Amino acid sequence: MSVSEILGGKGDNVITVSPETSLVEVAKILAKHKIGALVAKDGSEVCGIVSERDIVRHIASDGAEALQHTVGQCMTKAVISCTRADTIDTVMEKMTAGRFRHLPVIEDGELLGIISIGDVVKRKIEQAERDAEDLKRYIAS
Amino acid sequence: MSVSEILGGKGDNVITVSPETSLVEVAKILAKHKIGALVAKDGSEVCGIVSERDIVRHIASDGAEALQHTVGQCMTKAVISCTRADTIDTVMEKMTAGRFRHLPVIEDGELLGIISIGDVVKRKIEQAERDAEDLKRYIAS
Repeated sequence: MSVSEILGGKGDNVITVSPETSLVEVAKILAKHKIGALVAKDGSEVCGIVSERDIVRHIASDGAEALQHTVGQCMTKAVISCTRADTIDTVMEKMTAGRFRHLPVIEDGELLGIISIGDVVKRKIEQAERDAEDLKRYIAS
Repeated sequence: MSVSEILGGKGDNVITVSPETSLVEVAKILAKHKIGALVAKDGSEVCGIVSERDIVRHIASDGAEALQHTVGQCMTKAVISCTRADTIDTVMEKMTAGRFRHLPVIEDGELLGIISIGDVVKRKIEQAERDAEDLKRYIAS
């Protein structure tokens, strides 16, 4: 299974923010869309990614003041991404190696979607169920 | 692969908090231990679970004031758990169905560990690598 197929099932709508957005605003956007991370864009260019974890880590070091910090101050700038041709196993490996749970899909500088660790696990279960069904049919025939 | 084997690799040390702990304290504990959720205990009894997501959702609705809220006000009280005998696939299904990323291991009311979605994905990769090795050896023999 490829990233392209995962995006096909969940859509390619990605919520983005500017680096000037405050963390309290980020919290509101994450809650509204029921997601865990936002890609930061400077004009049309992807410049970072900010997650629930980044917000909580900044609160741990700076307390309530952190909520007025900007995305630009807290985001991960070296964004690891994948392409639509990557397999679900490659995505799993990247997430495990980097210890993150969101992977933007970027091709030629263009943001095409975002894959979460929840998407990956959901698809792995579906794949396992299909494999079991195939095996049952094979044994029955 | 079972929960017991996952715990064997990561240890059964679980950080817990009391329901009176403030969210700003929770943020500090999560950062210190590099984890994403804490089990809440009232005396020796598990009474809830609080995650990075819970903190961010409360900030979204109440702003900086949320940091003074207590774990008891923000935690998920109906804790879904697993046992050491559960398989990794059962754990994946529970996480996907409930849309959460941490599953405490509880037997006879006793907290024995916690499994994160990151642990699950890491073990799935290791399992896939072992399966591929086995297949290579089988073909070569």
